[in-house]
Amino acid sequence: LHLAEGGLAVVNDGQTIVTISYSTTVLRALVHAQRAGRRFSVICAESRPVFEGRQTAAALASYGIPVRLVVDAAAMHAVAEAQMVLVGADLLSMRGLVNKVGTHALAAVARGLDVPFYTLCGSEKFLPPGFTPLPQSDWPAEEVWPDAPPGVTVQNRYFDTTPLELLAGIVTEQGTLPVAAIEAWLAATKLHPALAAPPTHTVH
Amino acid sequence: LHLAEGGLAVVNDGQTIVTISYSTTVLRALVHAQRAGRRFSVICAESRPVFEGRQTAAALASYGIPVRLVVDAAAMHAVAEAQMVLVGADLLSMRGLVNKVGTHALAAVARGLDVPFYTLCGSEKFLPPGFTPLPQSDWPAEEVWPDAPPGVTVQNRYFDTTPLELLAGIVTEQGTLPVAAIEAWLAATKLHPALAAPPTHTVH
Repeated sequence: LHLAEGGLAVVNDGQTIVTISYSTTVLRALVHAQRAGRRFSVICAESRPVFEGRQTAAALASYGIPVRLVVDAAAMHAVAEAQMVLVGADLLSMRGLVNKVGTHALAAVARGLDVPFYTLCGSEKFLPPGFTPLPQSDWPAEEVWPDAPPGVTVQNRYFDTTPLELLAGIVTEQGTLPVAAIEAWLAATKLHPALAAPPTHTVH
Repeated sequence: LHLAEGGLAVVNDGQTIVTISYSTTVLRALVHAQRAGRRFSVICAESRPVFEGRQTAAALASYGIPVRLVVDAAAMHAVAEAQMVLVGADLLSMRGLVNKVGTHALAAVARGLDVPFYTLCGSEKFLPPGFTPLPQSDWPAEEVWPDAPPGVTVQNRYFDTTPLELLAGIVTEQGTLPVAAIEAWLAATKLHPALAAPPTHTVH
């Protein structure tokens, strides 16, 4: 089963879908669903600071999928008129879904409004237990505010981590799985010893 | 009691406070609290599309208040490390708090994390029952995306409405009041008949 086909399990006729950032996986799944006859529309968060949401919106429009682009803060709010939030994934581990900053807030708002939140995430993005991701670094402040005055600290983080319990499910190449199944899958994944961080360096 | 002094009831030593947009009321209250000896730091959401958060951050920094500026999506997330969210108000009615887009999502995230969410709102911002605010218009799409390709609808809304039940309290010139007290106050406010919308034009 190709991951894009897995999207058919969650993308339904008449839906409004909120997404954030640019994910080839999400794009392929939405285009696949459209070709399979599903009719839906998408609201893209612009995804500051580097506006990957514009790339997603332009690509969806080029396939004739109805698409609206809004600022990130409005996308959170747009979840109220959506039937699903669908995002990609940078990494997935027991600690949560690492994805574009804003994903966690989208998931929290979706939970509050009872709108299902899914990630499209192939198992190659799964991090086995014991593998410690590199600490997240700050990106250039200039991307957020090129001429910030002295005294203002500009913080530019690209990613956040969404707790797994906020996910309605995870669309994988094995189909759409509940979080508990993913947790079992992750737990069963063997980590090559060379990839394990030395215990003294493990960050909890 | 001046509204800025009312802020002393909610701004405490050691707090990290998240805010959004630019509000002279919030700015005055924070500066007043600092002059009263309170030591706190502020995280400003940049407030797309027109970046009023930069104005707030620059002003706070000029008073020596520690301040960090982040993209709006990260501000939602920053609520997790904050002890309070404090925002201004454009209008307040039984329908909710009308303020800069993103306020509603901040309030929803704050509720989920059990972080108190306050608005500083003088009673001149209270809308009596029966007064119908003008329908919100869309602002220029170019402010969000100057060169959007054909097929992408760019929506630019400046405001959203936060349900009153998400507020921990409302700081007014009468002190910090619980939402129930504000609702009673609003209900007791008489609307001048000339300001009431004709029933046939009332939007519910």
